[in-house]
Amino acid sequence: MKACGLIVEYNPLHNGHVYHIQQAQKLTESDCTIAVMSGNFTQRGEPAIMDKFSRTKAALSAGVDLVVELPFLFAVQHADLFAKGAVSILDALKVDHLVFGSENGSIESFHHAQKERQKNQTAFETVLKKQLENGLSYPEANRAAYELVGINSALDLSSPNNILGFAYLQAAEALHSPIQVDTIRRIQAGYHEQSITGPIASATSIRSAWQDEKIQQVKAAVPEKTFELMEAEELHSWEAYFPLLRYLILTRPAETLRQIHGMDEGLEYRFKKYINQALNFQQFLSLIKTKRYTWTRLQRVCVHLLSNTQKHMNREHLEQAACPYIRILGMNKNGQAFLSSRKKQLDVPLYTHLKDGMHPVADLELQAADAYNSILPPEIAAASRRQEISPPIFA
Amino acid sequence: MKACGLIVEYNPLHNGHVYHIQQAQKLTESDCTIAVMSGNFTQRGEPAIMDKFSRTKAALSAGVDLVVELPFLFAVQHADLFAKGAVSILDALKVDHLVFGSENGSIESFHHAQKERQKNQTAFETVLKKQLENGLSYPEANRAAYELVGINSALDLSSPNNILGFAYLQAAEALHSPIQVDTIRRIQAGYHEQSITGPIASATSIRSAWQDEKIQQVKAAVPEKTFELMEAEELHSWEAYFPLLRYLILTRPAETLRQIHGMDEGLEYRFKKYINQALNFQQFLSLIKTKRYTWTRLQRVCVHLLSNTQKHMNREHLEQAACPYIRILGMNKNGQAFLSSRKKQLDVPLYTHLKDGMHPVADLELQAADAYNSILPPEIAAASRRQEISPPIFA
Repeated sequence: MKACGLIVEYNPLHNGHVYHIQQAQKLTESDCTIAVMSGNFTQRGEPAIMDKFSRTKAALSAGVDLVVELPFLFAVQHADLFAKGAVSILDALKVDHLVFGSENGSIESFHHAQKERQKNQTAFETVLKKQLENGLSYPEANRAAYELVGINSALDLSSPNNILGFAYLQAAEALHSPIQVDTIRRIQAGYHEQSITGPIASATSIRSAWQDEKIQQVKAAVPEKTFELMEAEELHSWEAYFPLLRYLILTRPAETLRQIHGMDEGLEYRFKKYINQALNFQQFLSLIKTKRYTWTRLQRVCVHLLSNTQKHMNREHLEQAACPYIRILGMNKNGQAFLSSRKKQLDVPLYTHLKDGMHPVADLELQAADAYNSILPPEIAAASRRQEISPPIFA
Repeated sequence: MKACGLIVEYNPLHNGHVYHIQQAQKLTESDCTIAVMSGNFTQRGEPAIMDKFSRTKAALSAGVDLVVELPFLFAVQHADLFAKGAVSILDALKVDHLVFGSENGSIESFHHAQKERQKNQTAFETVLKKQLENGLSYPEANRAAYELVGINSALDLSSPNNILGFAYLQAAEALHSPIQVDTIRRIQAGYHEQSITGPIASATSIRSAWQDEKIQQVKAAVPEKTFELMEAEELHSWEAYFPLLRYLILTRPAETLRQIHGMDEGLEYRFKKYINQALNFQQFLSLIKTKRYTWTRLQRVCVHLLSNTQKHMNREHLEQAACPYIRILGMNKNGQAFLSSRKKQLDVPLYTHLKDGMHPVADLELQAADAYNSILPPEIAAASRRQEISPPIFA
């Protein structure tokens, strides 16, 4: 069986994603589509609007055959770690192709940039370090380093999907993975696009339209299944977690906050200083944001605070940057057949569900799920918790 | 000025409390009444239905001249520590009398029990230790020890107010305090009485009647000011904090829970084992309760978990069992005159408000206040927080 891998968040799954699934299948002539999907929190440091189980249902309904979880440990990290975690899963599953969507759309320009980067590695690292010392944020310093070293002539490394795609390519290279990486140009909507203008819209604009109760616009931009799931649930957003975040910042001493992953350079004092002035999450982030601390970075720290992800946790797995297990969230018969075909070649354990004490990375996954569910009524939270320890969704 | 001290919770202040204030003034012929009052959490390990500021207003309106805070450090503890903290404040203020309400009503029987206890100290301690080893809870072991050593012929040390009164007497003795201790027999309602039958009712029955919306019964049992305050606010109860408690138990590892004050003998595993089975606070407590862990003890552990009170915090102050400062919550002109008369004799600092970093015991007070306020909308929580750092209430 020939398989094609996608790295996704589906927050929520929209028509652009369906296009991506179909084009990837066509391009690679694969028999099976595998999605590595973030769980309850996304790479930009936000609670996903629907939990992993609902988003798995949407994925299966849109043509994905197998949904595998990108562990929380890798999902809420900067592009490099996110990419390494996700690509290591596709590599472990011996998936033949990886197809990502990008603003650029030409895999040659990615390969070119990668070669340039390798040639100029030392210069690049020196300039990057200097820019970080100058107080630039990581993405800004990174982009500046590419520009100053003269690498990115053909590839705009300020576009979020180009950044991620480039990270996938580097991760595959680092793993010496035989996976064939290709890209499809994203159509119409930009990643950060704020308004919906037709059937193809960004996930950001769909979430924002939903919040503004522009229900018909959302309906036009997502498959029926997604719309049905969105209507059935109370959607999650940072604001609902703000009282809890506020409580944690006020009742934990600075030394405790400092243990949190990403809480560096005295950021804990900034959190404590401004929390009493903020009446909601947006206000709080605006208050603590600086040139150096990007909105995304601060949101990730907030996710780690909420999920109690500490610096010392799973450090060895982060350093290895390889996922220590494969966790199936959902599949159809085709996905099941793929798994059977690959089962014997797997170097890491295959989990059909999690349980307490199974693996430190899985323990953190359950902890993050409990944090995500904490705003739900206890009976619904308990039901969602039970899904973590139940067999995968079968479509 | 001759002053009379009361040790109170006023949760809420009711007609029985007004009777106690008046009788204490009459009995001691004092010019001034001082109440040492618990803050936002009570000795039995519950969030007070109204915060300390509302309860201070009720106290001033009922004839108390000066309201001093019993720090959280001492307020949510077993009877001995509660008593030591409270009596040390009255002693520091050179208050002349302490009058407590009791089921017994005769100070002679308290003095007698105290003498008997002193005579049989070694035997008492041996028996107490043995009973605790047998798996009895602390109050049960204590009562059994009194019975077995043959002390409490005249004083029933299973009645909660007798227990507290006896603890006040012992605390005064331990401090070599010149304070004169006296008692008034509580009229009609028992401490744990569950229903209201007239103008005198227990605070427990008033809280429960309010919850059952028996508003007229409550109105008959409390002063007008209390009723007005109760009507104006959303009253606090454990159930509102349950989602937060649930979140903490699920997302903190056992080692972190073990740092919490009172989380002993592997109780943290019991918390973790049962939390997913409980849909509310009552259910959770019922699940974790055993013969050894009384409901009250478990509620106190839950308060410490909520307020993040750790074992290592303020240990020296708990061991000294003396309040390191006096914090004024409210006063009238008479109370102010009393303070002026005692100011120069004070051995501990007098605080008119708290601020961050002022004193470790005050830091814990603010932390507990933040935990208490965490269920309120951020703007109301922030306003309540500001009251902690503002001048006292003046009536």
